[in-house]
Amino acid sequence: MSEDQAAPARRGRGRSGGGAARRAERTSVKFDVAPTIQRKIKPLEYLDEEALTIIETNAETVLEEIGVVFAENPGALARWREAGADVRGDRVHIPRGLARKLCETAPRQFTHHARNPERSVEIGGNNLVFAPVYGPPFVRDYDGGRRYATIEDFRNFVRLGYMSKWLHLSGGTLCEPTDVPVNKRHLDMIHAHVTLSDKPYMGAVTDHEWARDCVNMSKIVFGDDFVDQNAVMTSLVNINSPLTFDNVMMNTLEVYAAAGQACIVSPFIVGGAMAPVSVMGTLTQVLAEVLAGVAYSQLVRPGAPVIFGAFVTSIDMNSGAPTFGTPEATQITTGAGQLARRVGLPFRSAGGFTGSKINDAQAGYESANSLQMGLNAGVNFMLHACGWLEGGLVSSFEKFVIDADQLGTLHKLAAGIATDENAQAMDAIREVGPGGHYLGCAHTQANFKEAFWASKVFDYKAFETWEDEGARDTATLASEKVAAMLANYQAPALDQGIREALDAYIARRKEEMPDAYT
Amino acid sequence: MSEDQAAPARRGRGRSGGGAARRAERTSVKFDVAPTIQRKIKPLEYLDEEALTIIETNAETVLEEIGVVFAENPGALARWREAGADVRGDRVHIPRGLARKLCETAPRQFTHHARNPERSVEIGGNNLVFAPVYGPPFVRDYDGGRRYATIEDFRNFVRLGYMSKWLHLSGGTLCEPTDVPVNKRHLDMIHAHVTLSDKPYMGAVTDHEWARDCVNMSKIVFGDDFVDQNAVMTSLVNINSPLTFDNVMMNTLEVYAAAGQACIVSPFIVGGAMAPVSVMGTLTQVLAEVLAGVAYSQLVRPGAPVIFGAFVTSIDMNSGAPTFGTPEATQITTGAGQLARRVGLPFRSAGGFTGSKINDAQAGYESANSLQMGLNAGVNFMLHACGWLEGGLVSSFEKFVIDADQLGTLHKLAAGIATDENAQAMDAIREVGPGGHYLGCAHTQANFKEAFWASKVFDYKAFETWEDEGARDTATLASEKVAAMLANYQAPALDQGIREALDAYIARRKEEMPDAYT
Repeated sequence: MSEDQAAPARRGRGRSGGGAARRAERTSVKFDVAPTIQRKIKPLEYLDEEALTIIETNAETVLEEIGVVFAENPGALARWREAGADVRGDRVHIPRGLARKLCETAPRQFTHHARNPERSVEIGGNNLVFAPVYGPPFVRDYDGGRRYATIEDFRNFVRLGYMSKWLHLSGGTLCEPTDVPVNKRHLDMIHAHVTLSDKPYMGAVTDHEWARDCVNMSKIVFGDDFVDQNAVMTSLVNINSPLTFDNVMMNTLEVYAAAGQACIVSPFIVGGAMAPVSVMGTLTQVLAEVLAGVAYSQLVRPGAPVIFGAFVTSIDMNSGAPTFGTPEATQITTGAGQLARRVGLPFRSAGGFTGSKINDAQAGYESANSLQMGLNAGVNFMLHACGWLEGGLVSSFEKFVIDADQLGTLHKLAAGIATDENAQAMDAIREVGPGGHYLGCAHTQANFKEAFWASKVFDYKAFETWEDEGARDTATLASEKVAAMLANYQAPALDQGIREALDAYIARRKEEMPDAYT
Repeated sequence: MSEDQAAPARRGRGRSGGGAARRAERTSVKFDVAPTIQRKIKPLEYLDEEALTIIETNAETVLEEIGVVFAENPGALARWREAGADVRGDRVHIPRGLARKLCETAPRQFTHHARNPERSVEIGGNNLVFAPVYGPPFVRDYDGGRRYATIEDFRNFVRLGYMSKWLHLSGGTLCEPTDVPVNKRHLDMIHAHVTLSDKPYMGAVTDHEWARDCVNMSKIVFGDDFVDQNAVMTSLVNINSPLTFDNVMMNTLEVYAAAGQACIVSPFIVGGAMAPVSVMGTLTQVLAEVLAGVAYSQLVRPGAPVIFGAFVTSIDMNSGAPTFGTPEATQITTGAGQLARRVGLPFRSAGGFTGSKINDAQAGYESANSLQMGLNAGVNFMLHACGWLEGGLVSSFEKFVIDADQLGTLHKLAAGIATDENAQAMDAIREVGPGGHYLGCAHTQANFKEAFWASKVFDYKAFETWEDEGARDTATLASEKVAAMLANYQAPALDQGIREALDAYIARRKEEMPDAYT
């Protein structure tokens, strides 16, 4: 799983075909894709050494004294017993220090490979990558409003993600394609990620059979050996907080870890419901859960790549509704980042979170707060970085392009501040002098192209021009951008042999399985 | 100017009257006002020691070699010459180290007194205070759209500010009351701040005669001796960047500094126009300008309270429009905070900045980015914290309440994370155990009221409820809140003698001056 292993470079199974068409395609879809962010800035640290030590001590107490439940999973209980845990019923009491010790075989950093090697990303260390919204059953678009998502919606999100400069991953369940039987969706989703994009993707998690399909399809794309030795999927394994590892998620983790594929082990915390209402209490539980989950992945296959996850929301104590972009979520996420770095694991959290139903000011404030939080917390893998609306119930096309645009600000901030002689600009200050202006000076001319990040979605025009052009709000402007992007979309090249093998696999699997809708 | 000096407690001139009415008023207008924030979290630091030293060295070079212009101000040139500067024409070349040395008499922290001592604020050190939007000629409200501001608009902003829990200052020019002659506006503005609010206010700056009026009116409110010994106004003195101190602003600074009143010495930077396009270059110029301006205030009156200001925007290099909530503004502001702390001065920057024309998602993202930036940069005095729209051309009533609500998140974040036994919540984790939930547990019951910040403007309802209620966006919800607040507004008590003396002063001054509209 190290950086220096050769990337697959469309190895597939040695088939080839459609060379001319592929070359034509390849030349026509050139656009910028920003590489993995290498952070040059320090994260925020809200907790001091003493507080961090208290959390770590208390988390060990939780693991040992209270324990964690591995439900309906005799295999897991056996593994834990063998590793030295005290297993009573389905409750696993983990002796102080054991979980952390087991975590040591997990890599601090790994490469998540894309089928196009230029799109492969580094996860962990000082790196930061962005993945889009994950999971909503609904979509919203400007013209159609809110409705159940379809596979064509899903494909359109893949297309948007492929064309989004600042977005690194194609993602996973960009929305639930509800017009496809639930047991066959993963086949069509992976097919869309592989054929309509060449960015890294995530595997299915809600059934271990489907996880196996994802591994098999990835082997078609990358080759058997490559998949065994390299992460080509990062999949989202939620912990059933508090302190419960259900067998659906754990069986999936087992499939991926055994296949050498990466998992995000992620407590899913709605504050005050799945964790204590306090920051310290929540962090204690989060750490205990992640240590147990990551340790278990290493019991399945030592060295399997895994990510310290934390999905955190607060709640409105009046209504019980989850709330986003709030200070408590920022405090918990920032603290979790400190804990993850101390364990030595890549850290997943944050995203463009909002509870708003539409792309209004609330969506802007909450999402910006959440995105800034992720950068400042030192997140390595940011899921839901674009497209998330209505507390995760809705994938919004407009939100997708608005957030994806904002991710550019995080790229720029993470790059830090240039301090060389050109950046010091003393000649410019001398040239311009008191009372002058810098618009035309040599330093400005030489540097203006890269000097300032600017949005490709927001309106920077003067009031009168903006009014003459119809007084469009951000949602309107974004809807126009969505339409323009989809109109200009062209699929990246894909080896014809791989495409045919994938199609055949999917056809066979769909044949084998009855349609299931729940 | 220290904390332990007695506050004025409505001393005025000993007149009294309307006692019963006042007591009735006083009892009926009780609502929460949050005190000055005392930061318990560390600021972000993007620049290391080496970079900071480079900036400091280069800024001294700028002051010595290039110099700064004090235009049409022979008195200032004389002061500088006497202090040891090399004055050539109106250009002041300040020997290396002199400006910084002169800055040493400025207080690191001071109290800005309000006429209600409970509303007095601490400026500098670990404190953070919020002041509203300053300067726009236009207002926007949800029903009326965009129009020139009037004195009644101004008064309504004072009323909103008075009732905003998280806002510390009543502010200065909340909008330009364009229906009042330009030379008489300051009289009506101070009158509104004093009579409709009891929070601290800012003085006029665009003419030194008007500044004198503000000092005189403040003496009516606070008493002559108190004003001489305490800051009761903090006023905004912009530097005409690059490196120029015009006589209008400097004559105003002279009035305030001589009267012992606080000034913010603030470079006004549109990146690439008034400063180099690079972060380091801009910070060098900012530091040089602030050192010169603050040093000058100390030449006028050693010990006069003064704030290290930095107003920074980037520009869209395509259109030349200023842009807000951008990464470069964050980098510069964060760096300026580091420099201000090294000089040992209170730091003013940030705000709820946006270039958007309306309260849409753009306004949300840009404002949230700017507010977070301010908190993380360690700002002490945040001007424009609420109500700013359209790049500062518009004061928006809706934006005012949306931003003022968001300021609550900054209060909560700045307070840091509680780490005591209650916060650790081990008993709660024990009580709930694996698979349970925390909604009803003892720890949640005991702590839920203060556990999570929640917006009073945003919509947290379920989709169906929200739709049934009219699918209101944030701007709509905010407009309803504005109307409700103004309907419930009641003026704070004010000594009748002070009110009469103020009215008489204003009447006399209006009589003396001809109406001027430009």
